[in-house]
Amino acid sequence: MDKKKLKKLLEDVQEGSTDIDRAMEHLDDLTYKNLDFAKIDNHREIRTGYPEVIFGQGKTPEQLREIISFMISKESNILATRVDPEVSGYVSDLSPDIQYHKLARCLTIRKKPAEKTAESIAVVTAGTGDLPVAEEACVTAEIFDNRVERFFDVGVAGVHRLYDNLDDIRKCRVVVVVAGMEGALPSLVGGLVDKPVIAVPTSIGYGANFSGLSALLGMLTSCAAGVSVVNIDNGFGAGYLAGMINKL
Amino acid sequence: MDKKKLKKLLEDVQEGSTDIDRAMEHLDDLTYKNLDFAKIDNHREIRTGYPEVIFGQGKTPEQLREIISFMISKESNILATRVDPEVSGYVSDLSPDIQYHKLARCLTIRKKPAEKTAESIAVVTAGTGDLPVAEEACVTAEIFDNRVERFFDVGVAGVHRLYDNLDDIRKCRVVVVVAGMEGALPSLVGGLVDKPVIAVPTSIGYGANFSGLSALLGMLTSCAAGVSVVNIDNGFGAGYLAGMINKL
Amino acid sequence: MDKKKLKKLLEDVQEGSTDIDRAMEHLDDLTYKNLDFAKIDNHREIRTGYPEVIFGQGKTPEQLREIISFMISKESNILATRVDPEVSGYVSDLSPDIQYHKLARCLTIRKKPAEKTAESIAVVTAGTGDLPVAEEACVTAEIFDNRVERFFDVGVAGVHRLYDNLDDIRKCRVVVVVAGMEGALPSLVGGLVDKPVIAVPTSIGYGANFSGLSALLGMLTSCAAGVSVVNIDNGFGAGYLAGMINKL
Amino acid sequence: MDKKKLKKLLEDVQEGSTDIDRAMEHLDDLTYKNLDFAKIDNHREIRTGYPEVIFGQGKTPEQLREIISFMISKESNILATRVDPEVSGYVSDLSPDIQYHKLARCLTIRKKPAEKTAESIAVVTAGTGDLPVAEEACVTAEIFDNRVERFFDVGVAGVHRLYDNLDDIRKCRVVVVVAGMEGALPSLVGGLVDKPVIAVPTSIGYGANFSGLSALLGMLTSCAAGVSVVNIDNGFGAGYLAGMINKL
Amino acid sequence: MDKKKLKKLLEDVQEGSTDIDRAMEHLDDLTYKNLDFAKIDNHREIRTGYPEVIFGQGKTPEQLREIISFMISKESNILATRVDPEVSGYVSDLSPDIQYHKLARCLTIRKKPAEKTAESIAVVTAGTGDLPVAEEACVTAEIFDNRVERFFDVGVAGVHRLYDNLDDIRKCRVVVVVAGMEGALPSLVGGLVDKPVIAVPTSIGYGANFSGLSALLGMLTSCAAGVSVVNIDNGFGAGYLAGMINKL
Amino acid sequence: MDKKKLKKLLEDVQEGSTDIDRAMEHLDDLTYKNLDFAKIDNHREIRTGYPEVIFGQGKTPEQLREIISFMISKESNILATRVDPEVSGYVSDLSPDIQYHKLARCLTIRKKPAEKTAESIAVVTAGTGDLPVAEEACVTAEIFDNRVERFFDVGVAGVHRLYDNLDDIRKCRVVVVVAGMEGALPSLVGGLVDKPVIAVPTSIGYGANFSGLSALLGMLTSCAAGVSVVNIDNGFGAGYLAGMINKL
Amino acid sequence: MDKKKLKKLLEDVQEGSTDIDRAMEHLDDLTYKNLDFAKIDNHREIRTGYPEVIFGQGKTPEQLREIISFMISKESNILATRVDPEVSGYVSDLSPDIQYHKLARCLTIRKKPAEKTAESIAVVTAGTGDLPVAEEACVTAEIFDNRVERFFDVGVAGVHRLYDNLDDIRKCRVVVVVAGMEGALPSLVGGLVDKPVIAVPTSIGYGANFSGLSALLGMLTSCAAGVSVVNIDNGFGAGYLAGMINKL
Amino acid sequence: MDKKKLKKLLEDVQEGSTDIDRAMEHLDDLTYKNLDFAKIDNHREIRTGYPEVIFGQGKTPEQLREIISFMISKESNILATRVDPEVSGYVSDLSPDIQYHKLARCLTIRKKPAEKTAESIAVVTAGTGDLPVAEEACVTAEIFDNRVERFFDVGVAGVHRLYDNLDDIRKCRVVVVVAGMEGALPSLVGGLVDKPVIAVPTSIGYGANFSGLSALLGMLTSCAAGVSVVNIDNGFGAGYLAGMINKL
Repeated sequence: MDKKKLKKLLEDVQEGSTDIDRAMEHLDDLTYKNLDFAKIDNHREIRTGYPEVIFGQGKTPEQLREIISFMISKESNILATRVDPEVSGYVSDLSPDIQYHKLARCLTIRKKPAEKTAESIAVVTAGTGDLPVAEEACVTAEIFDNRVERFFDVGVAGVHRLYDNLDDIRKCRVVVVVAGMEGALPSLVGGLVDKPVIAVPTSIGYGANFSGLSALLGMLTSCAAGVSVVNIDNGFGAGYLAGMINKL
Repeated sequence: MDKKKLKKLLEDVQEGSTDIDRAMEHLDDLTYKNLDFAKIDNHREIRTGYPEVIFGQGKTPEQLREIISFMISKESNILATRVDPEVSGYVSDLSPDIQYHKLARCLTIRKKPAEKTAESIAVVTAGTGDLPVAEEACVTAEIFDNRVERFFDVGVAGVHRLYDNLDDIRKCRVVVVVAGMEGALPSLVGGLVDKPVIAVPTSIGYGANFSGLSALLGMLTSCAAGVSVVNIDNGFGAGYLAGMINKL
Repeated sequence: MDKKKLKKLLEDVQEGSTDIDRAMEHLDDLTYKNLDFAKIDNHREIRTGYPEVIFGQGKTPEQLREIISFMISKESNILATRVDPEVSGYVSDLSPDIQYHKLARCLTIRKKPAEKTAESIAVVTAGTGDLPVAEEACVTAEIFDNRVERFFDVGVAGVHRLYDNLDDIRKCRVVVVVAGMEGALPSLVGGLVDKPVIAVPTSIGYGANFSGLSALLGMLTSCAAGVSVVNIDNGFGAGYLAGMINKL
Repeated sequence: MDKKKLKKLLEDVQEGSTDIDRAMEHLDDLTYKNLDFAKIDNHREIRTGYPEVIFGQGKTPEQLREIISFMISKESNILATRVDPEVSGYVSDLSPDIQYHKLARCLTIRKKPAEKTAESIAVVTAGTGDLPVAEEACVTAEIFDNRVERFFDVGVAGVHRLYDNLDDIRKCRVVVVVAGMEGALPSLVGGLVDKPVIAVPTSIGYGANFSGLSALLGMLTSCAAGVSVVNIDNGFGAGYLAGMINKL
Repeated sequence: MDKKKLKKLLEDVQEGSTDIDRAMEHLDDLTYKNLDFAKIDNHREIRTGYPEVIFGQGKTPEQLREIISFMISKESNILATRVDPEVSGYVSDLSPDIQYHKLARCLTIRKKPAEKTAESIAVVTAGTGDLPVAEEACVTAEIFDNRVERFFDVGVAGVHRLYDNLDDIRKCRVVVVVAGMEGALPSLVGGLVDKPVIAVPTSIGYGANFSGLSALLGMLTSCAAGVSVVNIDNGFGAGYLAGMINKL
Repeated sequence: MDKKKLKKLLEDVQEGSTDIDRAMEHLDDLTYKNLDFAKIDNHREIRTGYPEVIFGQGKTPEQLREIISFMISKESNILATRVDPEVSGYVSDLSPDIQYHKLARCLTIRKKPAEKTAESIAVVTAGTGDLPVAEEACVTAEIFDNRVERFFDVGVAGVHRLYDNLDDIRKCRVVVVVAGMEGALPSLVGGLVDKPVIAVPTSIGYGANFSGLSALLGMLTSCAAGVSVVNIDNGFGAGYLAGMINKL
Repeated sequence: MDKKKLKKLLEDVQEGSTDIDRAMEHLDDLTYKNLDFAKIDNHREIRTGYPEVIFGQGKTPEQLREIISFMISKESNILATRVDPEVSGYVSDLSPDIQYHKLARCLTIRKKPAEKTAESIAVVTAGTGDLPVAEEACVTAEIFDNRVERFFDVGVAGVHRLYDNLDDIRKCRVVVVVAGMEGALPSLVGGLVDKPVIAVPTSIGYGANFSGLSALLGMLTSCAAGVSVVNIDNGFGAGYLAGMINKL
Repeated sequence: MDKKKLKKLLEDVQEGSTDIDRAMEHLDDLTYKNLDFAKIDNHREIRTGYPEVIFGQGKTPEQLREIISFMISKESNILATRVDPEVSGYVSDLSPDIQYHKLARCLTIRKKPAEKTAESIAVVTAGTGDLPVAEEACVTAEIFDNRVERFFDVGVAGVHRLYDNLDDIRKCRVVVVVAGMEGALPSLVGGLVDKPVIAVPTSIGYGANFSGLSALLGMLTSCAAGVSVVNIDNGFGAGYLAGMINKL
């Protein structure tokens, strides 16, 4: 339930077109729905403008199914991240609109018609190995109605590939840069564009990469201003934040 | 030299009101000024919308003086961060407009009249010890013409202090949250507001804080969406990015 | 053998109702039972008030079976932690009273009738993924006769879920808070209740979580007083200590 | 203002013995006092049973003086930790009752007559170098009216010193164990007593001690149950928690 | 070939009882045998008193077989560590004297009759999980003709188990102490015996154990003198060094 | 396309022997080929003297097949590293010249006849376990036409094996030293030869080796001058750089 | 009081040559002397063969003076490590026999005439910067009556310096090897001698040395057998252990 | 003494123009000079082509003076690194040719006339703060007769500064790239030039820079081939290696 719906309901009560019992029913789960093992935060959309998103990792298929089943009965779009292919099969019958994004390992159900933003988010990757994280960012941004432009495999080892796409990147309102190994790309992009850059370190690499630590530290200490960082492999966080900024 | 100035100059050349030699003089340092020990990036404002900022740490007073002397001859506002009080004294005669911000350890020279943004940036701190970093963010945002609201010492140990200020924080367009120790405040704020949150870990604390590592890791793994992170104690980076977002 | 039993035996010897040989038999294993690969600390209950608990991880099914077989011949309740489901099957015939707690991965045998404490331990989790660790704490506290209240999935991303349960949490005598990712919940709870808080970091999360390190450091540097920390994923340790405090 | 005082005030209003304006004055700062740079949490004693404690580190002498000046006007005992000797001199004129504990680097002002607890807290150290941290724990526990027993320099290198004092330690209700280097003492004590053990790692040591990391990790992975851990060198946290448990 | 054999051969040449060609054959591999993928250090026994030992980890079954085949043709006892059970099966036909030690994951071939040392090495473990590492130490020491006494599961959580065995431990000439988790046992033993203590940290534990780091750091920073440390899980190194000291 | 080919094409255009459309076709992919998921850097050979190399890890068999298929249509030699055996089977039909190097896990296709360098690269390993990394270096150097000499298993535990080969190593123009565990060999070699040493730490070892960290830190802090380091297990990087230096 | 003295006293009591009161006086401090801030372990010599050693770091000059004053009244040799020059001056009047070792930062008082061991300890360093740690080892070994041979600055960067001294090193009974940076020397020595090697990592170096971590990890993962490690910069520990082994 | 000189001496002996005693005198220190605290490696130039270089850090002024005094009597150029200004004053009288390089903190004495190489080494820095390290590389390369080109302050935040200098950098034979913070510059340069790149991470930065760790890890995991890395702040090592490669 978003802010508009809530206001409408209260006006209906005020005008008498909805009686209190019926309104109570609607509002019953307003704050959160208490499942056995989880308390679904229904209030989040009112508070932060966005519905609760399901973090699939570490949840059993049964738990995931129960959560989605409940959320389908509500009106917000649904996004579940970190859902393995087999788990996605276990819930695929819940709705004809359910969609599984294989590369991004995300599952979405669109409940409201899309109203795409006028401006775009650029999602840029350094290499091919960064695609799953980048796609998680794209899917996240798109389910929340953002227009997304993809610029993949333009890392600093062949920097002319970036320059070739720079004009298009500059047209976007916010830039997500996904990179593993030394994570140098956000510094370069940050020095070339006049838009906020959200850097996503990935665990792509080996050895002194230490599961993404090298890219993470590199991005945090970037010499370019206008760059901030999310957790390693956190495509969701980047896509979510980019969408939030894009809609300001 | 910003984009408007550059366009005007080219129009003047086109119209013949400025001859080529004179224009060349203006454009001579357009890309960068080569001092002995530094190449000042004059082109940055055209490229990223912001003039080069001086990172004072690790520069000798002489180097700082030479850089500021050069930049004063240009038209952009000047910001130097991480300037110790004694160093600030060494350059204070360079301009009557020079201003030293003691707590923030910043030095500013305003060259253009301020045109404050309509909307504000909220700068929030968990504790009193976080003030120097928060003030660096404030000074940075302000020299780039942003309106700033300060909410200091509202950390999670006494969370009613945050709730008391929540309405005012929610009115701002972007929120900077500065915290040391366990760095829990951005998670809490991120779950309560519908605006982008820029988290700044500080090195305040001791022991397992490991010079800001605990706050840094905490913020990166925040369970709240809409939160991104800059380097430990990087008030400048947060203020700069917040301003960039605020002006979108 | 607990202190009461030991005293009774010595009195019987004093009074002559038990002869020395028979007493010797009873006392033979008093300090420890020397199996081939392990020395079971029978004396612990006298010394610390609690019987030895079996740490299942790293023990072969055969070793576990032998240890439980021996301990069943004694009078204390039995708790084995970190027991995989298949291993639990391997010992399930040892007693009709054996109980396997799937989520908690614990195995218990109650030998004495339960005398539940008057006051309760609150076990609170930030998310759904923290349940296995929380349940290990619950099972541990319960086998040692503590009353336990569960408050699951009330993390800081939707803090109203915590407030909703705060009155009930405050009624408990000691609070166990289980959280992964940034581990911010203990700080918040510690600032809101007047009871000791035992924080349990979990390895739930990814990337900069570094297998629980982020939550661990966050909890250790908590700005709230009254909070102490046990090892990552150490539900047993938290439940044990909470029970010890609850019975003071 | 503690709970009793608050209730009395409300009763006085109810009975008419205090008028509303006067009550308002008393309650004005009830939640927090907003100094320029800090928001003092006056409400904490009602919420958690303990008044706010001043963390001296990173505060200027002026800030400390202003905070103490305000708190003196209230009725709770005052404790400031991590106060350097010179800073203590800067505030010593604020009250005749001000007391500086040199070894503990704490400053206390007793405002209420002491009502010592019946039972004691044992504060145990491994070595002489651990004394400052141990004394911080002692001073903290004592200002909150706990009886404290000190057992210093009884580390595992000469374990008979511990055994010699074991009977007295066992008589206490809760045990604080302070140790640096390998931090082995809490494991040993935890295996010998039937009371909660609060372990405090110290930064005493060198090399692979890594500023207390070795003791911290050792205590967290202790093989003894009933042990929990606070931050490195956090004598205050241990003393505070011990007092909280002692008064249950 | 050890020093005695070498001297004998040279004397035979001197005396003419062995001709040069034949001696050359014996000495051909004296320094090292160059297999394709490895250079077996035949000279080591002359140089260090001990034959080369085979580190099985990371070697293919074929490589292991080839190395053992070559070494069998020499006169020294053979020890291969870190050999998985299946690999041991792959080489078991190479000699009737081959012996696989399952718990220790070692493979030995005794070529010379054992001449056991007069004095013993004590191998002590904190827990049951430390047995594989301890057994690797025992097998290593024994194949080099040392007498070994085993004292298993006497960790600090139940320290009376150690005291019970202390007299026997004190009779040994050198003590190997194997422990995981916080690794406190070597400190305790080091403070109670007057013999060199070789501490072996194990990776037994979880969470803040960080794969043996906690035990390693704890042992390195031990407050007891007379303690030195080998690599995590390095039972071989401890057994080897203990034997070397035992034979001094 | 290398520099020579490019120049020839432009000359042909100049002379009219190639018309512009045809030249355009040749130059179409000059900078990069945009596959769906990757942008192949065709320009790299012109820029750096070396064609793009395929990093197989993290690429799907389909992606690898598509990339190789495209590159086969060009004229440079092809090298793909970190290719698992099963994946190599999936592409083996693409060319009769395709060659899979099992130990090195590399796949090569030679398109130009080899013109071996006059001087050699020495590839030296400390142990047998370092062979896969060393072979990756060898294969890389060889596909780029370098002569390579192998010196395997000459680590410091039996240093006479190194001395025995020192004269041959000294004859090479650049030395690659591959070592795990403590990584001491590059220091020793660096002190004995007058050629650049490229040190490659490997993840061979266990415990305090921390996946190659010990060797990495050891090599970086080497007391011998003339030594530089590449990433852990990065045989490719060492072979590539050695070839670059060898051809200077 | 060592074992011999204690036995003599008891025999005197048995024979009547010493009466009980007088014996009691002698035995009063037998276990430990309880100073205010320290419990001096007088019993250690009986238990471990060595008197308690004073760890000077972190002790105030007053504490040090009080401890030494007490110990002078006993019969054992006195060793205090980590004593700064100024502190040494503060206690220099306590005995005419007090000796301050500047480089080693140790203070010794010889109370018993020296009975040097027949065999020697070799103390070997890699570089000049390692001397203070090496000298701490030498002074420690010497005050406990060991003969010591010094071999300084023979590190692997110029390995012929080691070979030149190898014969003399091999004559010693145990070898202490002190090295910073990559800490490669113990591996080399361990492969060349047939005696136990005690490796001491030092904090000498910079950058990736991380205060001795590189040397520490290198020594722990040494490929040479017969090597064990003590804490970073722990010359005392190495000298003490070497002496213990030397006297076996 | 270099190889040429040594050969000449032996020829003189062969021809009889130098008698054996006199030759002995010359050769006396050939391997090393044994000062009290150091063994100067005179043989290094013969072995590695370069004379021993003095690492000033951790040496006392007296030690430094003694070493330089000895080396002045020889014929090689002298380089001492990490020499503080005050120490440089302490030895400035030793030779009229002594030169102190303030920024580089190096001290040189040229004994042989310079024969500059035909080709140059490029020394490139990301920022102004990297100059001291870069200058150490320059001075080192220059004292060993290399031609050096400096390109300072061309980091990725303003990448046009690099492009502007790219042609000149490409003309050099080997490139040293010095960078702090995220250390991204070597990756960029490595992708743009066809020469070996030696990357030097510096400790310039703060927070998540962790004293150079971020730059170090970034450079090690660089996605560009042809890049190798030396220790943090190790300008000497880079300059030395660059010179070695430049002279191949």
